[in-house]
Amino acid sequence: MHDDEDNPALGHHLILDIWGKVNNTPFFNMDRAAIIFESAAKEAGATVITANWHHFGEGMGYTGVVVLAESHISVHTWPEKGFAAVDVFMCGNADPTLTMKTLLDFFEAISYKSAVLTRGLK
Amino acid sequence: MHDDEDNPALGHHLILDIWGKVNNTPFFNMDRAAIIFESAAKEAGATVITANWHHFGEGMGYTGVVVLAESHISVHTWPEKGFAAVDVFMCGNADPTLTMKTLLDFFEAISYKSAVLTRGLK
Repeated sequence: MHDDEDNPALGHHLILDIWGKVNNTPFFNMDRAAIIFESAAKEAGATVITANWHHFGEGMGYTGVVVLAESHISVHTWPEKGFAAVDVFMCGNADPTLTMKTLLDFFEAISYKSAVLTRGLK
Repeated sequence: MHDDEDNPALGHHLILDIWGKVNNTPFFNMDRAAIIFESAAKEAGATVITANWHHFGEGMGYTGVVVLAESHISVHTWPEKGFAAVDVFMCGNADPTLTMKTLLDFFEAISYKSAVLTRGLK
């Protein structure tokens, strides 16, 4: 990611709203998500410090938060809507957009909205 | 938060970039931040499930992630820049903007940038 050298961003934050099929497996499958998300973080050049995954119960979605040396990744799923809200916030040289293809593939995305915010610009 | 009933947002996501004094105490003081952030979450109507706080060492900043029944809160601090990047993402009736005053006061903000994203709008 390139920024003005006199006023560099401290981090880049990918906001990713993913729509897939209602009640499709990836919106329930937290254990698989944990593997995919932590792997995607590493592929983007980030270092995983720890992670918290919480499932809301049978027939419900889950929340995952991966704490990185370079900030964090989060995901929240709504199986009944076929929706996942993903954030990938990375500082330094790690590039959050490098996780996009892996995450869209995992959720079998039909459509998505994405934006990259620059954080810490004065 | 009010939305079109036919196409309600699934969550509201407050993006908050906070600038204060370089090397001011709150950018180091993770233990105090943990209390303030979890208290702010409850004040906004959210339920804390768990939290992860990680300090990067003496003279360095910290990362905190609070997992909520209504999504999550995260914070990353850069004491050497006098900067904190905060996210408050809440679904349902919890209103992330209700945390703003508490968090700005905690960091003794000199300036800030904020935005509220609607997540899960088709």
